[in-house]
Amino acid sequence: MIEDWDNFLIPYKQAVDELKVKLRGIRAQFLKIDGRSPIEFVTGRVKPVDSIKEKMVRRHISEDRLEEDMEDIAGLRIMCQFVEDIYQVVDLLRKRTDINILEERDYVHNKKPSGYRSYHIIFEYPVQMLDGEKVILAEIQVRTLAMNFWATVEHSLNYKYQGEFPDDLKGRLESSAEAAFKLDEEMSEIRDELQETNEAAPDNKLRKSSDENSNLQ
Amino acid sequence: MIEDWDNFLIPYKQAVDELKVKLRGIRAQFLKIDGRSPIEFVTGRVKPVDSIKEKMVRRHISEDRLEEDMEDIAGLRIMCQFVEDIYQVVDLLRKRTDINILEERDYVHNKKPSGYRSYHIIFEYPVQMLDGEKVILAEIQVRTLAMNFWATVEHSLNYKYQGEFPDDLKGRLESSAEAAFKLDEEMSEIRDELQETNEAAPDNKLRKSSDENSNLQ
Amino acid sequence: MIEDWDNFLIPYKQAVDELKVKLRGIRAQFLKIDGRSPIEFVTGRVKPVDSIKEKMVRRHISEDRLEEDMEDIAGLRIMCQFVEDIYQVVDLLRKRTDINILEERDYVHNKKPSGYRSYHIIFEYPVQMLDGEKVILAEIQVRTLAMNFWATVEHSLNYKYQGEFPDDLKGRLESSAEAAFKLDEEMSEIRDELQETNEAAPDNKLRKSSDENSNLQ
Amino acid sequence: MIEDWDNFLIPYKQAVDELKVKLRGIRAQFLKIDGRSPIEFVTGRVKPVDSIKEKMVRRHISEDRLEEDMEDIAGLRIMCQFVEDIYQVVDLLRKRTDINILEERDYVHNKKPSGYRSYHIIFEYPVQMLDGEKVILAEIQVRTLAMNFWATVEHSLNYKYQGEFPDDLKGRLESSAEAAFKLDEEMSEIRDELQETNEAAPDNKLRKSSDENSNLQ
Repeated sequence: MIEDWDNFLIPYKQAVDELKVKLRGIRAQFLKIDGRSPIEFVTGRVKPVDSIKEKMVRRHISEDRLEEDMEDIAGLRIMCQFVEDIYQVVDLLRKRTDINILEERDYVHNKKPSGYRSYHIIFEYPVQMLDGEKVILAEIQVRTLAMNFWATVEHSLNYKYQGEFPDDLKGRLESSAEAAFKLDEEMSEIRDELQETNEAAPDNKLRKSSDENSNLQ
Repeated sequence: MIEDWDNFLIPYKQAVDELKVKLRGIRAQFLKIDGRSPIEFVTGRVKPVDSIKEKMVRRHISEDRLEEDMEDIAGLRIMCQFVEDIYQVVDLLRKRTDINILEERDYVHNKKPSGYRSYHIIFEYPVQMLDGEKVILAEIQVRTLAMNFWATVEHSLNYKYQGEFPDDLKGRLESSAEAAFKLDEEMSEIRDELQETNEAAPDNKLRKSSDENSNLQ
Repeated sequence: MIEDWDNFLIPYKQAVDELKVKLRGIRAQFLKIDGRSPIEFVTGRVKPVDSIKEKMVRRHISEDRLEEDMEDIAGLRIMCQFVEDIYQVVDLLRKRTDINILEERDYVHNKKPSGYRSYHIIFEYPVQMLDGEKVILAEIQVRTLAMNFWATVEHSLNYKYQGEFPDDLKGRLESSAEAAFKLDEEMSEIRDELQETNEAAPDNKLRKSSDENSNLQ
Repeated sequence: MIEDWDNFLIPYKQAVDELKVKLRGIRAQFLKIDGRSPIEFVTGRVKPVDSIKEKMVRRHISEDRLEEDMEDIAGLRIMCQFVEDIYQVVDLLRKRTDINILEERDYVHNKKPSGYRSYHIIFEYPVQMLDGEKVILAEIQVRTLAMNFWATVEHSLNYKYQGEFPDDLKGRLESSAEAAFKLDEEMSEIRDELQETNEAAPDNKLRKSSDENSNLQ
């Protein structure tokens, strides 16, 4: 029995705190060097104990297998403007020497039945504890702002009504997910066409100096 | 001539820092008391000097009128899940005794020609400076995640290409804004129908304990 | 009976968060305008529920008098380099229009029997709650780094041993407080003599640019 | 010639941000597990460009040797209550697998001529940049609150008067450093004697619950 969940979650909380600083650092680097970042903003959280317990029951995970079998106790989320940005971010994550990627799940191009889209990366991350290094599992979800809009609203409905949706509403939610994804594709296409009509790249200095719409906090 | 922009911007930076803490506090209160918040997340920024100068030229604002005529040097943004949440947040802002609202602009139901939607509130806010209180102008934009998705991408395209869009692309961007708004309406309708089919409200304690999808940082 | 301490403490937590940003803003202003700040760093905390309960017993405060009679549920601390800085900070706090000072206690020049020194300010502070403005009590302690050194160590010993000190150790602690205060006075004197021997003030631009020893975080 | 200092300092700023989160994590772990932390608080800064340039001249460091020869561009500082805490923290740092210690300088027991005391650790730290891992040099200074009091005031005087102190004032500063160290020793002795007179350790649960004097921010 895990008697002290607070203690159990210490390395996960530490990992989330460190990874938020690390992933936000990527955004800062892009903005300084490039004037534009594929990362719009980053969030992170440790899974609440209630959700951990609920998932243990649902997925038949015993306490002694918790550290190996539950991959999203430490969870990070990266939001992008365009679908292509997701893959640029994933490439960067693959190159990092401070995480060890175990698995990638592309729910962007293979959506879940609910309509959910995101790119999931499961990895090992070493945390320095008082009694030495401890390697934990963690998950990063990479998605566009539109995917995040849909997933946030769907999660909040799902949560409030415990996933008990009538079939027709399920269908309408799924169609909404599709509409959101179509919007993503349309925005990418508009960007591509703009790029073609604007052969001459705009002055780099100008692009660098502005960050008015920044979500940096 | 404003020779030291850093000094000029001190009270604006201070206002943004204070208001971020204040508006995020609203979210925290809702989550603790209600289990759900109409505020998903809050961002803030001081307008970069380049953008201030560019807007002074475009809007014919002289330096000695800057404090009175440029309302968004200190800017906050509140993101909501549903369109109705926007108006709940606006009601709360109206009740605050620490800001003095001068003007409200409802671009949610009266979109701009570009397709842009958001609710803008212009207000006075007092900041304590070394030589006494100084009242500055500031702006809060309240919008849904879908409106924010569209506005973020549109801003970034607009910025990169200096707003020089061919007419057909302008039209497509506008249609995308409409599609995003349709999505917002559909999500609200799904929520309303779920609410009807679920007469019995779910257990409050459960709803309170979870905050897995939180964007709190 | 206060059944939900979390809810009871919401406005206090909000006040501490806001006041930390406000007081740190003073430091930032001084550094930008003057190149030197009388404020070295600022900390804040909400009194832990255990400590509140313990103090209620010790001071015979009933629950229905808690809001009026316990002044340090929301507590801020300002650390200064020199004793004179304390009074400069106190003067600034007196001028603020966002707090209403109720009481000042000068334990700097009238030390407590234990040897403790600090300047305490009790004040009212308005917080915006979901159901309107709520005015709470809060306390700011202003002290030098030397006073803080002594108070921190004394608190930690006191805490560990529940204040049960043999008389001789009590006396030695008191002497240490005196020695710390003597050090403060010596540092101030050295500063004053340096000021006299250096008639010509050093180049202002240089002084402004450096902040290497900053405790800003 | 380093033309873009902002770019040059990106990895150093990133390292400082990450290490602040990491070192503060140690404090949080101690408080949760032990109820008391040898770390009181942690600060960090990137050396300002002016100070870097000044030190390059003073130490005859050329730009192409900057990364190898200037060890404190990224600087962290850990403040402790007792002298013994310094060595406990140093031991913990030695065990970390995410830093590679190159050199330790014990100015605690071998004070500098000025009277300065602190424990300095120079180490390599890997940062993930957009184009791969980059290993930089960084420095952690570990000191007591009393040492920090003296060093902070001395630095600020030194800085203001460019180190041009008359000999007698130099002597008085040095004596003050000694007095501060004596205070540290006296506090340690008082703690030790308290420990002896209190054979029975106090209830652990109580000790854990309180953190009133915390400097966590």
